[in-house]
Amino acid sequence: MEKHKFKTIGIIGGMGPAATADLMNKIIDMTEAAKDQDHIPMLVDSNTCIPDRTLAILEGGESPVPQMLRSAKRLEQAGADFLIVPCNTAHFFVPQLQKEVGIPFLNMPQETGKLLQQKGIKRAAVLATNGTCQSGLYEKVLTEAGIETLYPSPEQQKLVMSLIYDYIKKGITDPNKLPREGVVAMIKDLHARGAQALLLACTELPLAFSILDLYDDTCVDPTSVLACAAIQKAGATVRKK
Amino acid sequence: MEKHKFKTIGIIGGMGPAATADLMNKIIDMTEAAKDQDHIPMLVDSNTCIPDRTLAILEGGESPVPQMLRSAKRLEQAGADFLIVPCNTAHFFVPQLQKEVGIPFLNMPQETGKLLQQKGIKRAAVLATNGTCQSGLYEKVLTEAGIETLYPSPEQQKLVMSLIYDYIKKGITDPNKLPREGVVAMIKDLHARGAQALLLACTELPLAFSILDLYDDTCVDPTSVLACAAIQKAGATVRKK
Repeated sequence: MEKHKFKTIGIIGGMGPAATADLMNKIIDMTEAAKDQDHIPMLVDSNTCIPDRTLAILEGGESPVPQMLRSAKRLEQAGADFLIVPCNTAHFFVPQLQKEVGIPFLNMPQETGKLLQQKGIKRAAVLATNGTCQSGLYEKVLTEAGIETLYPSPEQQKLVMSLIYDYIKKGITDPNKLPREGVVAMIKDLHARGAQALLLACTELPLAFSILDLYDDTCVDPTSVLACAAIQKAGATVRKK
Repeated sequence: MEKHKFKTIGIIGGMGPAATADLMNKIIDMTEAAKDQDHIPMLVDSNTCIPDRTLAILEGGESPVPQMLRSAKRLEQAGADFLIVPCNTAHFFVPQLQKEVGIPFLNMPQETGKLLQQKGIKRAAVLATNGTCQSGLYEKVLTEAGIETLYPSPEQQKLVMSLIYDYIKKGITDPNKLPREGVVAMIKDLHARGAQALLLACTELPLAFSILDLYDDTCVDPTSVLACAAIQKAGATVRKK
């Protein structure tokens, strides 16, 4: 049977499901296409059996590796040419998975580090889960790119975790219900500390910032960076805005 | 390895890709869930190799059946418990596919017919591709439910096809660029002809109507009806609004 002109993107999803659909939408929106058949084929496993990543990294919770590996192998077997993972925290486990899977991963933190380096950023704030922050996932990549990493204060970090777990993951998306004042104060503080870029390094955060109308030019969404890199790796063209 | 408490939904997608992500978002938004693991597992094949369905039905174009069957079997093999297809026109081919696949399809036109019957609708307008209209896909289901089917005039039908193919499928989503006046006149005319419900029976149309802010209480989106039915079939609960 005829194959598509583009490579097939495999998406290990479900972490969370909304972030998975968001990545798909970004890939679709950013692809230069005039009809269905111009779009990149995608195989998606929204595997909601995958245990919480932050709990596994920081509190000895159940490892997400067996379920992520199961998804990776399913996608490989179904015909994916490369894999992407729309969950920042889950990238902690990607090197482990790569050893057991025959197709390559396109790595979201690494692609984000490359972009910031190209932009000449020298100091970036990482807004993410405790798991992503404490594992140093982004800090490692940024340091290698010559970029200094800033984190929110412990109080601000509690607010970030609450935005992710108590609001967006629970489906609360009414702007009037989100803790706007605290987020505004945190952004102001991070800019005052010299952050030239705010890495919204949990897939729920760009959504929260957009809902609150706080997504400005200093915000960087690793999901968008990954979507752009995946389109190019698949052999398609990124649509001009 | 542990299975999820819910059944796994398999989605034969890519017809078009945006409609596929839209259906996923509707399932996610409408599921009663407080964390990632409360969501229904989904396996999605956004198979953009599938040829155009309307061309196949009306103009002897390449059959979409082999590629749709390939997706169905891939999803079955990967562990899907039942299949859904976020493309109205493609339902023309579902009976043929069902014969060769071991898991059941949840049928979008049939679920929509059931809902209209429950609502007591007696006359409904079908807005869809030429393929869906001329194949009588919805008319058959509506007639069986005791509902009279109305269609747009030939001129209005050209506008519907243009909305789908020249605008939404090309990614043109700026409300100022869409042919608003013609759509408003068509809606008025269909209501005047006695339509109690407007079936937006092509996955691109609810998007077009929402962009134009013309999606009112008389509009029925078969994708939403399908999302709701799929959540229940998977064993999860539809979120109260």
